[in-house]
Amino acid sequence: MGFNTALTRKLGITDYAAYAQVIIDEGVKIVETAGNNPGPVITQLKKANTTILHKCTTIRHAKSAVKLGVDFLSIDGFECAGHVGEHDITNFILLNRARQDLGVPFIASGGFADGYGLAAALSLGAEGINMGTRFMCTIEAPIHHNVKEAIVKAEETDTALVLRRWKNTTRLFANKVSKEALKVEKESKSGEFSDVAPFVSGKRGREVFLNGDVDFGVWTAGQVIGLIHDIPTCAQLLQRIEKEALESMQRNQSLYTATPQSKL
Amino acid sequence: MGFNTALTRKLGITDYAAYAQVIIDEGVKIVETAGNNPGPVITQLKKANTTILHKCTTIRHAKSAVKLGVDFLSIDGFECAGHVGEHDITNFILLNRARQDLGVPFIASGGFADGYGLAAALSLGAEGINMGTRFMCTIEAPIHHNVKEAIVKAEETDTALVLRRWKNTTRLFANKVSKEALKVEKESKSGEFSDVAPFVSGKRGREVFLNGDVDFGVWTAGQVIGLIHDIPTCAQLLQRIEKEALESMQRNQSLYTATPQSKL
Repeated sequence: MGFNTALTRKLGITDYAAYAQVIIDEGVKIVETAGNNPGPVITQLKKANTTILHKCTTIRHAKSAVKLGVDFLSIDGFECAGHVGEHDITNFILLNRARQDLGVPFIASGGFADGYGLAAALSLGAEGINMGTRFMCTIEAPIHHNVKEAIVKAEETDTALVLRRWKNTTRLFANKVSKEALKVEKESKSGEFSDVAPFVSGKRGREVFLNGDVDFGVWTAGQVIGLIHDIPTCAQLLQRIEKEALESMQRNQSLYTATPQSKL
Repeated sequence: MGFNTALTRKLGITDYAAYAQVIIDEGVKIVETAGNNPGPVITQLKKANTTILHKCTTIRHAKSAVKLGVDFLSIDGFECAGHVGEHDITNFILLNRARQDLGVPFIASGGFADGYGLAAALSLGAEGINMGTRFMCTIEAPIHHNVKEAIVKAEETDTALVLRRWKNTTRLFANKVSKEALKVEKESKSGEFSDVAPFVSGKRGREVFLNGDVDFGVWTAGQVIGLIHDIPTCAQLLQRIEKEALESMQRNQSLYTATPQSKL
């Protein structure tokens, strides 16, 4: 069993130390952390021998997490859904930098939906891929069918980056509410977060998954929506990914012919 | 011999038809085009049986170019140097979409410096990679050594996107002038391009390559500057890329074991 805890700026104070203690007391062995100032929680969990996967969007944060003792990293490129960070570095750069510099295993997050992406991530040094948006669009995902249909219909250009003004940039599905939020963000004279808060309410967003009105609130989606064209079962999806990755690797292999001149 | 022509918004009118006629008259066989409204030039060149590589940053533009009869495409992700377009789609998404949809061969541009990137691009369906910033940082590149040293020292976060306000977004090396340009772009009350024009002058930028003052003007650089750590000869670079790509492909192959349960 795993546990995923994001250390975000909430509209209130959350007692992460208490969360971590419950995780330890319940015997959870693997925890994914993400977000600001993860030091105290990581230290607390590592003392209890928990295995920690830390997700981050910059190499600087990845290095800090390695120093704090995390076991492996989830490297999250600019193409991802949700919190993209403020530096906009894409996975072609981030994963390759992680391979060059980190010295611990890492998986690739953001932009993955198929075996071609998996093969590419492995080529850059990752040990695997992490998929969010793609799994939302499977038969088993416990969200309204309309959301899955919206993902299938969408192009890769149908996401919106909001909340940059407050250094909390988030990639959302480009619907009526996220577009309205973006307008308020651009035009707000006060620059107060409270101006935009009603639009980006997580509570309204969660309602979308239940009532199937894709314009009822904001919900996160990665650029990968442009690559998703069906609603398979998870088993079908994973079997296809394996097949595609193998096909991709075999194609690459077939492109290479050692030349007599080659000194390799 | 090839010829690279970018159809950009210049501060004046350029007679691209005359350029194209010279290309045809001189017997140039391969031309790279890029930029806005390439239709007339592509039609003119194709009538003369020229092979055309068209560079673009969106799948929509790629499809239009295929309809116009271009022979192959250069797919240019958000991580690239120079004109990134206005949609900010990364190469992990764009290349995979190109593989799904285009039906013509394509190469990958933006974010490439080594054999790991090459192997990843091939995995996503590309036929090869296009490198700009990486070749600037070779012994043979006819630019001042200081520029090469600046690339080696830079992190992937040391680029700046300017001119978005005028829908002509360009990725530049983050130096004093590009930062000043960004400030003017944000603060200009009039919104006139002439406010920022003196800062983004291509003429001053070209001087950088001659006088070695990396802050003298603006010059383009991709996020890939974070992956570049040396100044090899072109021969050393290409031999290393071949070796790395092979190493990457062999690692991928070693990760795969067909299981008895597998239905592949």
